[in-house]
Amino acid sequence: MPAPAIHIGPEPLAHLVEAVEDGGGRVVALAEAEAIVWAGSEADFPDELPERVRWVQLQSAGIEPWVERIRATPDGVQFTSAVGAYATQVAEHALALLLAGVRGIAGYARAKTWDRHDDPVLDGSTVAIVGAGGIGRELIRLLEPHDVKVLAVTRSGRDGTIPVDRLDEVWEAADHFVIAAPATDGTRHLVGADALARMKPHTWIVNIARGSLIDPDALVEALRAERIGGAALDVTEPEPLPDDHPLWDEPRALITPHVANPQATMDRDLAKRVRENVRRFAAGNALLAPVSRESGY
Amino acid sequence: MPAPAIHIGPEPLAHLVEAVEDGGGRVVALAEAEAIVWAGSEADFPDELPERVRWVQLQSAGIEPWVERIRATPDGVQFTSAVGAYATQVAEHALALLLAGVRGIAGYARAKTWDRHDDPVLDGSTVAIVGAGGIGRELIRLLEPHDVKVLAVTRSGRDGTIPVDRLDEVWEAADHFVIAAPATDGTRHLVGADALARMKPHTWIVNIARGSLIDPDALVEALRAERIGGAALDVTEPEPLPDDHPLWDEPRALITPHVANPQATMDRDLAKRVRENVRRFAAGNALLAPVSRESGY
Repeated sequence: MPAPAIHIGPEPLAHLVEAVEDGGGRVVALAEAEAIVWAGSEADFPDELPERVRWVQLQSAGIEPWVERIRATPDGVQFTSAVGAYATQVAEHALALLLAGVRGIAGYARAKTWDRHDDPVLDGSTVAIVGAGGIGRELIRLLEPHDVKVLAVTRSGRDGTIPVDRLDEVWEAADHFVIAAPATDGTRHLVGADALARMKPHTWIVNIARGSLIDPDALVEALRAERIGGAALDVTEPEPLPDDHPLWDEPRALITPHVANPQATMDRDLAKRVRENVRRFAAGNALLAPVSRESGY
Repeated sequence: MPAPAIHIGPEPLAHLVEAVEDGGGRVVALAEAEAIVWAGSEADFPDELPERVRWVQLQSAGIEPWVERIRATPDGVQFTSAVGAYATQVAEHALALLLAGVRGIAGYARAKTWDRHDDPVLDGSTVAIVGAGGIGRELIRLLEPHDVKVLAVTRSGRDGTIPVDRLDEVWEAADHFVIAAPATDGTRHLVGADALARMKPHTWIVNIARGSLIDPDALVEALRAERIGGAALDVTEPEPLPDDHPLWDEPRALITPHVANPQATMDRDLAKRVRENVRRFAAGNALLAPVSRESGY
């Protein structure tokens, strides 16, 4: 079996070269490539792909800017995203935000005086994970030693999960929510005024997916009216969140600036994914995280 | 076997009456008591105990104000603390503080603009738990699904733990520290200038034990000099922390006002402990969390 010819673009970054070679591939110029590992933006991607190219590996888990291009590319080219590659770090950040919210740490971090509140605990609560893909599954694993009932919501409702068309029940049943679903036309403003109205007064919403999944105006209104416990957001709409946005001054909001997947571990985790997918490509096996042209993720 | 006669003081709180009766005891006046469940302060405790009293259950895990009185009480009276009863809630708060510190959430909570840092992750790090009693063991359980190496430090060094006399190695070996040891003369300012000087620049220290375990002046100096990542403290010296204390304005400090064990779950968890110890007392079995006159905890 010859080593597959793989182009790394836009730059042949050392950790990716090493990963391609470790996976059994050889790094080549674009013109000779059977596959492309693209660690850059959609705008910089080559408009014409050499005819031999059958696979393109992208570097991010969310690939909204790529969907049109992928749909316009001939069927013989399989795109793969990095879905699941960063799941451990992102799930860790989701747990950090959930605990910080529920235990009142966001508020205490801003305090300048010793002022106790009787905050709730996570122990004994019900947490709904909306979108139980790689990150959701990883978060379920991290929650295992906690006495927490998990409600996993997926599009299909397979494998003991709750189908997305029963979300209305979930908004009422859970104490807290972690949004981990892909950003699609179908999930835009999934958390809107109606969902927020069904939640409990102590509920915290964590978003580590994409800002578009939450209606920001409805959220600000619910927080101002103290209708829910709070929102801990690593992603926002718009993003970056402008300085004059009301969420910066909202006591029940906690914003982290899209850092769930930090750069240092991202390089390491992407290299690991590239190595594994090159190995699979060389062996003719199914690749991890193939992008569906239909669903767009 | 007659139901043991148990006095609840200073007030016969309903949840404790229920716990005593569930455990097989009957609630009596002080003069008739064989045992006392004391849900009050040391200052209000009766100076003279009726002669039949053989057991006193206290409501807190840390019992520093009681040590002198316990040593002055006849040997036939066994005191029990609530060590371990609140371990789940306290360990949950310790994990919340550890994650909030390491992932930069304390700083982001105070930000008013979208400003990304490259924060570390907990995944892959080494966490030393100093004092692996009930809370420490519970934290180890919560950390199990994380890819974290735990160094457990105890006085004895038994059961695969590291003895306290090898702490100097531990200060250098671990990435992060959770202080969970009892407050005694021997543990006062256990974390001092010398320990802080051995730590790594990204190290976070979490204290959910007692403020006295950390030398506050040495800590403030280390934080100001940016020699460690930060300190997340649920307990302080002095406590409450006065409004003019430098830790309130220190960017690397996160203070929560002794809320690791919130009131709502505290009542529930104390009731559970009282029920279990009354059951054991009635059956003549060893009680949970007996206080040693020698060690003072």
